[in-house]
Amino acid sequence: MYRLVLVRHGESEWNKSNLFTGWTDVDLSAKGAKEAKDAGILLKEGKFVFDVAYTSYLKRAIKTLYYILDAMNLLWIPVHKTWQLNERHYGALQGLSKLTTAQQYGEDQVMLWRRSFDVLPPSLNQEDERYPRNDPKYRDVPDSQIPLTESLKETIVRVQDYWDREIKPQILAGKNVVIAAHGNSLRALVKYLENLSNEEIVDVNIPTGTPLVYTLDENLKPVEKYYLGSDQKVEHKIRKAADPDKILE
Amino acid sequence: MYRLVLVRHGESEWNKSNLFTGWTDVDLSAKGAKEAKDAGILLKEGKFVFDVAYTSYLKRAIKTLYYILDAMNLLWIPVHKTWQLNERHYGALQGLSKLTTAQQYGEDQVMLWRRSFDVLPPSLNQEDERYPRNDPKYRDVPDSQIPLTESLKETIVRVQDYWDREIKPQILAGKNVVIAAHGNSLRALVKYLENLSNEEIVDVNIPTGTPLVYTLDENLKPVEKYYLGSDQKVEHKIRKAADPDKILE
Repeated sequence: MYRLVLVRHGESEWNKSNLFTGWTDVDLSAKGAKEAKDAGILLKEGKFVFDVAYTSYLKRAIKTLYYILDAMNLLWIPVHKTWQLNERHYGALQGLSKLTTAQQYGEDQVMLWRRSFDVLPPSLNQEDERYPRNDPKYRDVPDSQIPLTESLKETIVRVQDYWDREIKPQILAGKNVVIAAHGNSLRALVKYLENLSNEEIVDVNIPTGTPLVYTLDENLKPVEKYYLGSDQKVEHKIRKAADPDKILE
Repeated sequence: MYRLVLVRHGESEWNKSNLFTGWTDVDLSAKGAKEAKDAGILLKEGKFVFDVAYTSYLKRAIKTLYYILDAMNLLWIPVHKTWQLNERHYGALQGLSKLTTAQQYGEDQVMLWRRSFDVLPPSLNQEDERYPRNDPKYRDVPDSQIPLTESLKETIVRVQDYWDREIKPQILAGKNVVIAAHGNSLRALVKYLENLSNEEIVDVNIPTGTPLVYTLDENLKPVEKYYLGSDQKVEHKIRKAADPDKILE
C-alpha cells in the first residue's frame, strides 16, 4: 500500500481580482498563504510525513509547498520543481478579466474554454511578452513543448509524462510523496489515478489548500480517497471550487 | 571568469538567547528573516541571477535562501540541501548557554572550543537525544559520518567533500551558484577559495545576511571579493560577527 497527497495552491492575488492566470507567475494572497499554513498544520496533526515533494515552476504552488513543509518541520526534504506541473496555459486569455472576457465573447464561449476537455483558448503569438520562451524559467524546455495555449487535454499529456518518468518510480520505491500544484495539473493526476473519462474529469473540482489523500494498492489503484479537514470546511471549499466565477485558475 | 555568492543565515532564535546551536534546528528570529529578505533585495538590485542554489538541512539556512530567492523572483531554481553544509556540530555544548558554559569551564576553555582549528568540544554519547542518528533527517548518512562533536577541521573535511563532488562541477559548467549556509561551513569554503592557513581561517568572521561575492578565475582562484551592501552596514556586521559573545553559531 502506498500513500500520496495532492494539494492545490491557496488563493492567488489574481484570483482575488478574478483574472485568468495560467502560467502568469502571480503570488499567493495573504489568504492563500494562510490556507497553505493551515494545510500544513492539518498534515502535521494527522501525523503525515513526506520523503520527497514535487511542485511547479510557479511561486503560488512553490510557496504553498514551503508553508506546508515548514509547518510539518520538513523543509529539509528534497523538493523537485518542474514546468510540467504548471497550471494549464490559458493562451491569450492570461491577464484578462473573467468578467470582461465573458462580456466580449459571451458566457457560453468562456465556459467552453474553461470547462471543456479539448477546446483551446485563443492562442498567444510568439511575439507576445507572455510567450513562455521569453521567460528564463523555461530556457531548458524544448520549443516544441512551449505552449502558446493549452486545453486540459494537452495539460494532461505533459503532467502524465512527468508522473510516469519522475513521480511514479518514487512512489513504487516506497517514498511518501506530496505534490503541490494547480487545479488543472492536479486534475491530470486525479484522472489518471481514478481512471476517469474525458467527460468526468471536467466536472472534478479540487478545493484549494485542502490535502487530498490517496491510499493506493500495488498497481497504484486507489483503495481510499479523502480530503483532510473538517467535513463542513471541506464541503464549503469543494462548493467554492465548483463555482466558476470564483474558481482559482 | 565565474561568480559565486555565499550568504550566512540571519539571526536565529537561539542566537538571541545566546545558546550554542550547532546542528540544533532552530528557526530564524524575526530579525533574521528581515536580514535574509534584505540580502535578497540587495542581490536583486545588483542584478544578480542564480541558476542553482545550495543550502544545509537546517531551517535557518533553508529559510534564508527561500527569502533571498523570493526577493529575486527565483523560487523556481533547483535548490540542493545537504547535511554536509550544516553548521559545525557543537557536541555536548549544543543547547547550553554560552554564559553559563564560560562560568563552568572558564572563558579560556570556551574560547578554545569556539575559536581553535582542531580542538573538539565535549562529545555527545550515542544515547543523547541530540545525537543526529536519532533524527530522521540524517537517516541516509552513514554511521561513520554522523558526528558526536566536531572541530572546525572536521567541518571543513565534509564541506570540502561536498564542494568537490557537487558544487565545483556546477561552477565549472558555467552555472551561477549561491550557497546559504553557516558561519563554520562557509569558513570551510573561504579557507579553500582563499587558500588560508589553519591559523588564518579561525580569525575570519563572516557577517550574517550579507552576500559575499567572489569573482573566480578559470582555476577557481579569487580575482575579486566583496560584501554586498553599504560600507557602514557591512563594517558593522563584520564587527558584530567578530564579537564572540554575540556571534551566531
